[in-house]
Amino acid sequence: MIPEITDIRKAAARIERYIHHTPVLTSRTIDLIAGAGIYFKCENFQKVGAFKFRGACNAVFNFDDDILSNGVATHSSGNHAAALALAARVKGVDAFIVMPENAPEIKKKAVAGYGAKITFCKPTLEARESMLAGVVEETSAAVVHPYNNFDVICGQGTCALEILEEIDKPDIVMAPVGGGGLISGTAITVKSLSPATKVYGAEPAGADDAYRSFKSGKLIPSVDPVTIADGLLTSLGDLNFGIITKYVDDIFTVSEEKIVEAMRMVWERMKIIIEPSSAVPMAAVLENPEVFKDKNHSRFSSSICN
Amino acid sequence: MIPEITDIRKAAARIERYIHHTPVLTSRTIDLIAGAGIYFKCENFQKVGAFKFRGACNAVFNFDDDILSNGVATHSSGNHAAALALAARVKGVDAFIVMPENAPEIKKKAVAGYGAKITFCKPTLEARESMLAGVVEETSAAVVHPYNNFDVICGQGTCALEILEEIDKPDIVMAPVGGGGLISGTAITVKSLSPATKVYGAEPAGADDAYRSFKSGKLIPSVDPVTIADGLLTSLGDLNFGIITKYVDDIFTVSEEKIVEAMRMVWERMKIIIEPSSAVPMAAVLENPEVFKDKNHSRFSSSICN
Repeated sequence: MIPEITDIRKAAARIERYIHHTPVLTSRTIDLIAGAGIYFKCENFQKVGAFKFRGACNAVFNFDDDILSNGVATHSSGNHAAALALAARVKGVDAFIVMPENAPEIKKKAVAGYGAKITFCKPTLEARESMLAGVVEETSAAVVHPYNNFDVICGQGTCALEILEEIDKPDIVMAPVGGGGLISGTAITVKSLSPATKVYGAEPAGADDAYRSFKSGKLIPSVDPVTIADGLLTSLGDLNFGIITKYVDDIFTVSEEKIVEAMRMVWERMKIIIEPSSAVPMAAVLENPEVFKDKNHSRFSSSICN
Repeated sequence: MIPEITDIRKAAARIERYIHHTPVLTSRTIDLIAGAGIYFKCENFQKVGAFKFRGACNAVFNFDDDILSNGVATHSSGNHAAALALAARVKGVDAFIVMPENAPEIKKKAVAGYGAKITFCKPTLEARESMLAGVVEETSAAVVHPYNNFDVICGQGTCALEILEEIDKPDIVMAPVGGGGLISGTAITVKSLSPATKVYGAEPAGADDAYRSFKSGKLIPSVDPVTIADGLLTSLGDLNFGIITKYVDDIFTVSEEKIVEAMRMVWERMKIIIEPSSAVPMAAVLENPEVFKDKNHSRFSSSICN
């Protein structure tokens, strides 16, 4: 079942008190370089530093209390782990997080700092999944998938609601694509409320499973992806793929060089810290000037994800 | 002559169309660490990346047209150079900037990018001043001192106007002290509009001329200052010293270690890029917990200067 805009509006009302309404920033210099009016939705200022908190928060707060009494669980090496841990703490329930033992120290610390119970495992998908299965068997905790989940998609879609409140009928809204949680929530919101706006995904060429899936019309998993944008290594979920197929206008792939160039440009010109995954849509603008340039009101919004 | 709040209000009206009204950001994590409610005034998002543009803009726009027809001039290795260059460009007049030949490449590029005419000189104060004198003799340009200047102080004071619009009667407003332009403008604004608010300066212990001047009651210049906060190496101006003596409640000095700790904390927790000079007030909070902690509504605003 694909979420509708009413589901996303319900999510917005559900999480409103717990999330930050993040600012939209602009830079005249970057507009000059791109030849377009570009609006950056600063989800790097979101709680836990990423849009992931929207989805995790919506999922946790939408569970029935009896399900929630056993806590929530997931496996994740990064922002979703921290997001779920914080959402669980806010709700006052346990969070059981399976993390690969080679996860970055700062992420382990963040997840532990939010009071989650961490179980470490070998850094393979198999080890993560079997360890999570064991944790769930023991605790009966409710699993919250990081992107292939109805409530998570609805939560991520609330970000675009805020964009459209602030920017009237943008020409383009673009988001990076990893597992597809952000782009699918974004696409539903934008196409429901501003049908003439183009929705684009942006993906590293070194992890282009969404691009290949989109172009071929069948879900192709990521095999040995290599990119500095470590938040976009995961393969597209099937729920996300269905939504992207239905609502997204196009997906752009970008080189590693352009990702670094875009990230540096945002650091230097906008004075905000974004991770490589977050720079991927700006990289798509730099790499495809003909698509974005010389449109007087070409507008574009990068949902910056940590 | 010391500026009054009416002068600062005039400056605000004069530069309003040309500056960014910068956001105030907060972080729950940093509030927890500090045990206080801390508001960060993000002048790193100001044009040219620093509050310096407020003062330069006010100075340039307050000149009579016949004076301005010869252009404006200054010597500076950093943000004031870029700020004056941009203000001159906005006004459509020439900017003549004397820069030490060892100024950072990125600053040289920024100043050149704003269309200023740059003259390079040896990196000594004597060389800078004599070169500037030569440039002024040749061009009859009007000199705009980076901080020891009535109009510049009024421009910097507009930042605190915005703080007080957003935060009602903060307990404390704190700013870093280099030449003293920001702290003196800030002190006039705050003490005029919210007399019960304490105004504190924060300075690196390795460049503590303002601290020593403030405590001894006489202007003591900086001798061989050493600090990572390279925006705060300059000695206090005499106009600035008079204002600080009259309006500032106290000045704190901080160690290099705390400056780095505070800067890293802001990068990691707030996801914004600030330079070491800008982290000095936060370092003062970390180093003097008893002053800021356990005050329920202790509020503090760091005017982040690029």
